[in-house]
Amino acid sequence: MSNMLWLRIVPFMGAVISLILAIIFASLVRKKSRGTARMIEISDAISIGSRAYLNQQAKVMSIFFAVLLALFGVMVYFKYLEWPSLPAFATGMGFSLLIGYIGMWISTTSNSRVTFAAQKKGLGEAMNIAFTAASASGLLLATVALFDTAFWFNILYWYYGRTAANPVDSMESVVNILITFTIGASFAAFFMRTGGGIYTKAADMGADYVGKVESGLDEDDYRNPATIADNVGDNVGDVGGMKADSLESWVGAIIATEFLGFLAFRNSPLMLNSIILPMIISTAGAIASILAIFIIKIIVGRYKENATVSKLTATTLAGLFITVIGIVILSFFTVRYILGSSYTFLFYATLGGVFAGFLIGLFTLLYTDSRYRPTRNISESAKSGPATLVVNGLAYGMESTLLPALTVIAVMLFSFYISGGGTDFKMGLYGVSLAAVSMLSVTPFAITIDVYGPIADNSGGIASMTELPSEVRKTTDKLDAVGNTTAAIGKGILIGSAAITALALGQAYFSKIELLNVNVLLDFMRDPKILAGLFTGVMLPFLFTSLLIGAVGRAADKVVIEARKQIKEIMAGRSKGDPKAFITIVTRAAQRGIIAPGIMIFAIPVIVGILLGPGGVVALIIGTLLSGFGQAIFMANSGGALDNAKKKIEEEGRSGTPEHAAAVVGDTVGDPLKDTAGPSMNILIKLISVVAIETAVLVADLSGKLFHF
Amino acid sequence: MSNMLWLRIVPFMGAVISLILAIIFASLVRKKSRGTARMIEISDAISIGSRAYLNQQAKVMSIFFAVLLALFGVMVYFKYLEWPSLPAFATGMGFSLLIGYIGMWISTTSNSRVTFAAQKKGLGEAMNIAFTAASASGLLLATVALFDTAFWFNILYWYYGRTAANPVDSMESVVNILITFTIGASFAAFFMRTGGGIYTKAADMGADYVGKVESGLDEDDYRNPATIADNVGDNVGDVGGMKADSLESWVGAIIATEFLGFLAFRNSPLMLNSIILPMIISTAGAIASILAIFIIKIIVGRYKENATVSKLTATTLAGLFITVIGIVILSFFTVRYILGSSYTFLFYATLGGVFAGFLIGLFTLLYTDSRYRPTRNISESAKSGPATLVVNGLAYGMESTLLPALTVIAVMLFSFYISGGGTDFKMGLYGVSLAAVSMLSVTPFAITIDVYGPIADNSGGIASMTELPSEVRKTTDKLDAVGNTTAAIGKGILIGSAAITALALGQAYFSKIELLNVNVLLDFMRDPKILAGLFTGVMLPFLFTSLLIGAVGRAADKVVIEARKQIKEIMAGRSKGDPKAFITIVTRAAQRGIIAPGIMIFAIPVIVGILLGPGGVVALIIGTLLSGFGQAIFMANSGGALDNAKKKIEEEGRSGTPEHAAAVVGDTVGDPLKDTAGPSMNILIKLISVVAIETAVLVADLSGKLFHF
Repeated sequence: MSNMLWLRIVPFMGAVISLILAIIFASLVRKKSRGTARMIEISDAISIGSRAYLNQQAKVMSIFFAVLLALFGVMVYFKYLEWPSLPAFATGMGFSLLIGYIGMWISTTSNSRVTFAAQKKGLGEAMNIAFTAASASGLLLATVALFDTAFWFNILYWYYGRTAANPVDSMESVVNILITFTIGASFAAFFMRTGGGIYTKAADMGADYVGKVESGLDEDDYRNPATIADNVGDNVGDVGGMKADSLESWVGAIIATEFLGFLAFRNSPLMLNSIILPMIISTAGAIASILAIFIIKIIVGRYKENATVSKLTATTLAGLFITVIGIVILSFFTVRYILGSSYTFLFYATLGGVFAGFLIGLFTLLYTDSRYRPTRNISESAKSGPATLVVNGLAYGMESTLLPALTVIAVMLFSFYISGGGTDFKMGLYGVSLAAVSMLSVTPFAITIDVYGPIADNSGGIASMTELPSEVRKTTDKLDAVGNTTAAIGKGILIGSAAITALALGQAYFSKIELLNVNVLLDFMRDPKILAGLFTGVMLPFLFTSLLIGAVGRAADKVVIEARKQIKEIMAGRSKGDPKAFITIVTRAAQRGIIAPGIMIFAIPVIVGILLGPGGVVALIIGTLLSGFGQAIFMANSGGALDNAKKKIEEEGRSGTPEHAAAVVGDTVGDPLKDTAGPSMNILIKLISVVAIETAVLVADLSGKLFHF
Repeated sequence: MSNMLWLRIVPFMGAVISLILAIIFASLVRKKSRGTARMIEISDAISIGSRAYLNQQAKVMSIFFAVLLALFGVMVYFKYLEWPSLPAFATGMGFSLLIGYIGMWISTTSNSRVTFAAQKKGLGEAMNIAFTAASASGLLLATVALFDTAFWFNILYWYYGRTAANPVDSMESVVNILITFTIGASFAAFFMRTGGGIYTKAADMGADYVGKVESGLDEDDYRNPATIADNVGDNVGDVGGMKADSLESWVGAIIATEFLGFLAFRNSPLMLNSIILPMIISTAGAIASILAIFIIKIIVGRYKENATVSKLTATTLAGLFITVIGIVILSFFTVRYILGSSYTFLFYATLGGVFAGFLIGLFTLLYTDSRYRPTRNISESAKSGPATLVVNGLAYGMESTLLPALTVIAVMLFSFYISGGGTDFKMGLYGVSLAAVSMLSVTPFAITIDVYGPIADNSGGIASMTELPSEVRKTTDKLDAVGNTTAAIGKGILIGSAAITALALGQAYFSKIELLNVNVLLDFMRDPKILAGLFTGVMLPFLFTSLLIGAVGRAADKVVIEARKQIKEIMAGRSKGDPKAFITIVTRAAQRGIIAPGIMIFAIPVIVGILLGPGGVVALIIGTLLSGFGQAIFMANSGGALDNAKKKIEEEGRSGTPEHAAAVVGDTVGDPLKDTAGPSMNILIKLISVVAIETAVLVADLSGKLFHF
């Protein structure tokens, strides 16, 4: 078995190339004018607000971090963990936070520049700047993802290669510690996603309702003092949270695959190869994304004046397609080069993953884009008032879970059986897990087209707040429309891959239990403890959703009441408004809102494990995964469709009508579903799994000692 | 083994006593005055509308019935079923329909009488009439439930006792055919619950929104032409649908327990005893309910003038408590008499069931009664507009799933292990199933306190439509308030028991497969087909909910538009309105809305069985059960809390304020959740199980022949 040195270096090369390009793109953006003094002032206010929030968030996270580190320290002391787990956990969390800060910095750097370009040079140039900035963001994510997984893998490979008795023991330690690394990343992502989600939606709901419905103001009207908090929210939730989330997904899928590769190839000379493979496929994803970004940049660069929404949407979709094709081609050679042509079947498994991701993205589009029936019907039902509109929005959201679920079921069965899972079970799982990695390898490009939505949104906010002519706002709204369509696809890919990754992690947990010689029969009809575990898992997403949207609802109540008070004063000319009051309200709500979920996510796998044993934990993981998947898609698509139904009415120039008011109510109901609770589901289902893996040995010990049915 | 003749006669005695009392109660009600000519006219219009709807429904059902009977006939021909299945199926459906008609007849007979009493004699006498009528309804349900289960059991026991080779084979045929009987009952209940649910909520949403929010009319204002359809809806959904639903639950639980009793005592001389036990416990439930009804009638009869909502609520809750205690005491002696004192542990299992049902009822109260925090907070958030109110309503609804789920998990584990499931697995399951039967044995009393809600609602409608002084409406509203509180408990018991019954049915299916010598390993981590089955099951409630609330939403759109048009004409004095137009709209919507779910509920277990094999079907049943339970509680409690939040605002005299408008939107969003989709979940999860059992042998054959992974 060679140590495959140069292959182990490939991810670093991918990271460096991505970094260099990201720096170039960022500096290209920074060369553009920041715009007028007023634009700069507002952009700065957003930037300061965003950083202030993230700093506050980091403080709360650091308390959790300290507690967890202490707990892990105790586990190290009692030999339930190995010591390198501690720095791995810390850096996992650190990288996640870092990518959040970087993403927000790029967005707040570019927002006023996009506004200024929209005013002076039109849609083409505005798109160009927004896309360049977003590319920098996407490529930095690739840099961090490739660097941190490869870094830890190589460090641990070297460290345990020196000390362990044999290669298999050595690799077992490596993959175990990588799981701890994922916990750090997932935990940070969970905080940033849910905290940011609470923040952004509480501000948004409050600002929209009082501004648009009660006071008849336009979106982001300068007289609405809650809009700064709203725009800050776009950054902390849709940029910071989303990026940490994507990083966590991608890294989690890579590491779960490494774990399953280790199990599938345990007694094979190809063990190291199988563990390296997911990192190389991810590098291929970065390279394909870079290619797509360049092609799109060239096309967009030529548009200038004659750009339209449909052209730009088609262009970005083409970019996604290029990325997918690039990954497919590179994966083919990668799999055959690393594992040999007799393992070409694993390439088909990755093909299934990429294809499924793309399909789920398209289904998302079908249910949330106003060109198609669901969103059109929802917008139609605005005529009969807010209640029927909301009911129709919820109905279509629930319906939209069907096709993605069938797709995930199909790709799971396909990847499993094509990889020979019928005879070699662990190989089948490795194939399923590779499908998730390849699905997620589009992340750099997906993030690029996702992040420019919030940038466009912010630039529109700046346009309105600086009282630019309404044409400028229309231009940025078009940019936003392009962003919404493409972001929907990105969200679909994230949740699709989360389901498969969580499955892989569940398998990793299960295998870890088996390695401990704990024999678990996962038969829910023969053991009621397994059924109880499944039941608990299925209920968990309900509970989390209630905690998160409840926090948003309560905070939004306060925002509405404060906004109503301030707008009255402003309209009467008695005050200029106090935007900071809103930032305080929503920051506090966000910080409070994440405490209970944060504690529960760690406590539940341990409590279930002690009460129901390891089999109950596997059932918990699977129950959470299945119901969380359904909830995530339902909430994302209900919210997306309600949002776009409202936008459709606005585009048709019916703002201010009763239908528009109904649609705003619908959008506002959908907001916390799609941007707070929905996206947190995919982190929840993975975090439950990794926490279970981390505490597996401990819980197996405790469970045996404390209870025995 | 004696043939236990006199014990087999006991349920008939219970049925006869219940019937006699029901007739007495009904004639007591009929002795009261029907009120003024105008009251009679409206009551007749509601009665005619209700029957017209149910007739139409029966037509659609008869098409389905014919198709299913033909399919079952083919199965009989190919020896997949025995011929007595056909009449069993037919009568199962017939009894369900019958109880729907009877329930509606009693309600429409009493509604104007309650109105007249409320006008002339006040709350005490109005309550007395409503409660007497509802008692007749509850006791007739007991009559049908006890009669039809005992009738079929005895017929089949006699028939197979003559022809079968030995008692075990004979009993196997008996329990198999009883399952077909349940399918008939469940299928009819499904149609009546979902069709009625679509009807009532489409009418309600439309009438409320246009009447209350847009036109500023009160509930049931005589100028709102959609109110007749709304009041018809109360009868077809909340009375007809609810009664068929309760009958199906109770009968389903009895028969599932008989099946599991057969399995647990297969090689024991107590086999027949174990199969008779659930019928005797149910008879005990009827007797306890009769006792409670008499006590409550005496107390209510004394109230007259000085009745208050809190007194009446306390009285009915006391009645429920009496019923529960009665069942516990009778069950203790029943279990020991029938199975002997060495089986006293099965009494503890039933105790767990009764206690859990009561607890789930109380949790429902906690989340939907306006005296407690959730509903109070929701009504508070009306100040910040409809969107935050709806979001808070959804959040509390999701939160409310936690305690009932934990209760069901706890009672499941408790009943299983207390019945010795750790060593004798089948005995454990029998214990769990007995818990469901005892939980449901409160049904006659639960239905009594449930049905008087819609009677009160109707009588209020008549009061408003006949332009009586507002005091009369206030009196009937108080009656309605009492009904809402107690109905919430009834709904909680229904869904709690549904979860346990479905589990028992799932076990029955699983055992049937095992009897076929098909060896199924239900390990979702070792067989992806099991996982795929679970996944499909978890998604099913989402799909059904979307179909049902989507149908309501679309029909409500039409009602709103028609109501808007008609009210305009009426207010301008150009027309007297055309109530029949609404009845046509909602009837059509209800009939269309049930077709797709009706087909799917039969097709899905078969398709899943063929594609994924019998193990996949077990997984499908469990997945549907777990996620359906969560969805059912979430929807029932969200809707209930939103409804009561609105009522609280009305009670505080804030009708017509913006907060009230927001609360009406919330109530309207909650309506299809709590009264259409929510209640249909508990039928869905059981129907999937019984269809699976019915087609088990066929599917096992087909699956083996068609596919092989």
